[in-house]
Amino acid sequence: MIATQYKGNKNFAVIDKKIEEPKDDEVRIKVAYSGVCGTDVHIYHGMMDKRVSIPQTIGHEMSGIIDAVGKNVTNFKTGEKVVVRPLDDRKVKPSDKGFNHICEDLKFIGIDSPGSMQQYWNVPAFVLHNLKPETDLKLAALIEPLSVATHDVRRSGLVKGETAVVLGGGPIGMLVAMVAKEVGAQVIISEVNPTRIKMAKDLGFDAVNPTEVDLVAYVKSKTEDKRADVVFEVAGVQPALDIMCEVAGIRGRILMVAIHGDKKPVDLFKFFWKELSLIGARVYEKEDYEKSIELITENKLPFKAMITDVQPLSKIQQVFENIDKNPSGMKVLMDCSL
Amino acid sequence: MIATQYKGNKNFAVIDKKIEEPKDDEVRIKVAYSGVCGTDVHIYHGMMDKRVSIPQTIGHEMSGIIDAVGKNVTNFKTGEKVVVRPLDDRKVKPSDKGFNHICEDLKFIGIDSPGSMQQYWNVPAFVLHNLKPETDLKLAALIEPLSVATHDVRRSGLVKGETAVVLGGGPIGMLVAMVAKEVGAQVIISEVNPTRIKMAKDLGFDAVNPTEVDLVAYVKSKTEDKRADVVFEVAGVQPALDIMCEVAGIRGRILMVAIHGDKKPVDLFKFFWKELSLIGARVYEKEDYEKSIELITENKLPFKAMITDVQPLSKIQQVFENIDKNPSGMKVLMDCSL
Ligand SMILES: NC(=O)c1ccc[n+]([C@@H]2O[C@H](COP(=O)([O-])OP(=O)(O)OC[C@H]3O[C@@H](n4cnc5c(N)ncnc54)[C@H](O)[C@@H]3O)[C@@H](O)[C@H]2O)c1
Ligand SMILES: NC(=O)c1ccc[n+]([C@@H]2O[C@H](COP(=O)([O-])OP(=O)(O)OC[C@H]3O[C@@H](n4cnc5c(N)ncnc54)[C@H](O)[C@@H]3O)[C@@H](O)[C@H]2O)c1
Ligand SMILES: [Zn+2]
Ligand SMILES: [Zn+2]
Repeated sequence: MIATQYKGNKNFAVIDKKIEEPKDDEVRIKVAYSGVCGTDVHIYHGMMDKRVSIPQTIGHEMSGIIDAVGKNVTNFKTGEKVVVRPLDDRKVKPSDKGFNHICEDLKFIGIDSPGSMQQYWNVPAFVLHNLKPETDLKLAALIEPLSVATHDVRRSGLVKGETAVVLGGGPIGMLVAMVAKEVGAQVIISEVNPTRIKMAKDLGFDAVNPTEVDLVAYVKSKTEDKRADVVFEVAGVQPALDIMCEVAGIRGRILMVAIHGDKKPVDLFKFFWKELSLIGARVYEKEDYEKSIELITENKLPFKAMITDVQPLSKIQQVFENIDKNPSGMKVLMDCSL
Repeated sequence: MIATQYKGNKNFAVIDKKIEEPKDDEVRIKVAYSGVCGTDVHIYHGMMDKRVSIPQTIGHEMSGIIDAVGKNVTNFKTGEKVVVRPLDDRKVKPSDKGFNHICEDLKFIGIDSPGSMQQYWNVPAFVLHNLKPETDLKLAALIEPLSVATHDVRRSGLVKGETAVVLGGGPIGMLVAMVAKEVGAQVIISEVNPTRIKMAKDLGFDAVNPTEVDLVAYVKSKTEDKRADVVFEVAGVQPALDIMCEVAGIRGRILMVAIHGDKKPVDLFKFFWKELSLIGARVYEKEDYEKSIELITENKLPFKAMITDVQPLSKIQQVFENIDKNPSGMKVLMDCSL
């Protein structure tokens, strides 16, 4: 079979590898599609070399079909369509208080252990979620990032009739916006990249550029001065941190989805003054995956538009080089059958 | 009657004033006690001269007895013991979403309009809460700051069996600690002032100095590694902001009670990683006052120890000068009958 390997220093290898039998608690998946995530791009840039054991097969946004099952696996069968929830929580402790998806010793499959950018992938059975026979496998590769969005929206408590402002219309922000709209909220996307603004508008979203439009005034005009009930920070930049406290109305909830490596200045006075909440959100829980599988299977939201390119596994090096050259593309899928 | 007036530049005047009749919607209160708040000290220091119209009678933590009622006031009678909830929310708007206590055009009585540091005080009837005939009027002067604490604890969702860490054992922190303990939580106070640490210990609290003890290790040792379920930031300093994200466990809730004038660096990564929440809390709602009135009337918590000095109204200048000299004292009450 073909497998890809990150070799360090912006380099991928495409190798020929023996197909391995699954261990007793494992299944072997014939991978259909594997999406490229921002984290994969970080790995490619060498920013996670301490965590990744080079050479490493990466990838964690995937769909596939069960190809073989280990002898202890009774709840999955060959031929079933599946996705992997890439969280290895086998080292959970009582001090994790039952929040397994963010347990202290969590291992992320595809970063801390081999991932899905290969033709066949062996994983422990407990990470699998079944798809329906009719679920589209291309769209199903979006279930992992979509589950970030369903988790964020669920944690925000967003309800029909409320207004959500999404700061950052990248892949995660766009999926958050879709889920928020599906809940019945009014959604406003704030984005600075013209290509992404256009895409958001083409998908029917209210999208503005905060460097051209006064975002706070705009949101006030759309909410009878109430401002946002919920703000999703999915841009990961200081201007988003500055505006999130302004654009949120009284008792507004701000979801911290973006990953900020360093301590950043925050207007804590506004948290006191308007009784704002800041709510951290990381990956997803089982129920977020189930919700995403439902949404992808129904296929009523514009998921298809999110997939801006599909390339064979053998082209992995060019794919990552192109992402660096064109940061406006949304989601690139690797076709793992080729 | 005697009234006091802040005159600017660390100066108070004690003047003789005519007792005024209450307007139609007002009551006249014979003030019993009026506590000195950190905000009053800020005013004395000239830090709020833009907001206070000099000369101004300040004070908002009080207890008293109704002395006369305006002709439209039907629900209060002369002789009743009362406290004032000093929030003038008459300019509430729909965009305040029903959160009147933090409405955009809120006026704080005793800062934005005359306060309680005088023998008789006329206030609109809607700010009054009735006490019981048996409620101690000295302790009742603590109801305002205690309501900050009952509000904070209520907003935190703290329940029996959880662990709360209170950063800062000043008047507000100590009251938060009392209310948290009353809920049935394990409470740990972090404080740097030795006099206040001693007082906390004398009141039966677990109190540590974070500059001498590793607070995170200490809290872990008291929680089987779970760390804190709830952290109250009532210190208002950068070291408290730094440690709040460390000492909070997975899904911990951090209450932002302290007032931070400038933007401050915050470890947003920890919010993402542990799915922490930061919850802003400002003053109190009606139900917080009712809860505090109940607690003060029952008098089972060590409220008496909070009152470290009682002085006649005529001594106001010395009282504020002494607070500057001795910042370890807790609550000074002005006896407004003298
Ligand atoms: N919480 C989680 O579990 C989780 C999971 C996946 C990704 N993330 C994080 O979510 C964030 C978004 O991920 P992504 O893959 O969509 O990243 P991305 O970089 O593609 O998207 C960020 C978007 O923000 C836009 N932006 C930049 N400055 C802006 C500004 N001032 N105002 C508005 N928009 C602005 C960019 O143009 C870009 O489109 C990243 O920080 C990522 O690390 C978190
Ligand atoms: N949210 C509200 O509505 C509301 C109402 C009243 C007061 N406040 C705010 O609450 C805060 C506390 O009020 P207070 O009157 O008790 O003030 P205070 O200044 O008397 O108390 C702060 C305490 O923190 C201690 N401290 C300093 N550095 C510390 C550290 N590194 N670790 C632990 N403790 C430390 C100080 O020694 C002091 O005892 C202030 O910021 C005040 O403005 C907010
Ligand atoms: Zn990802
Ligand atoms: Zn006060």
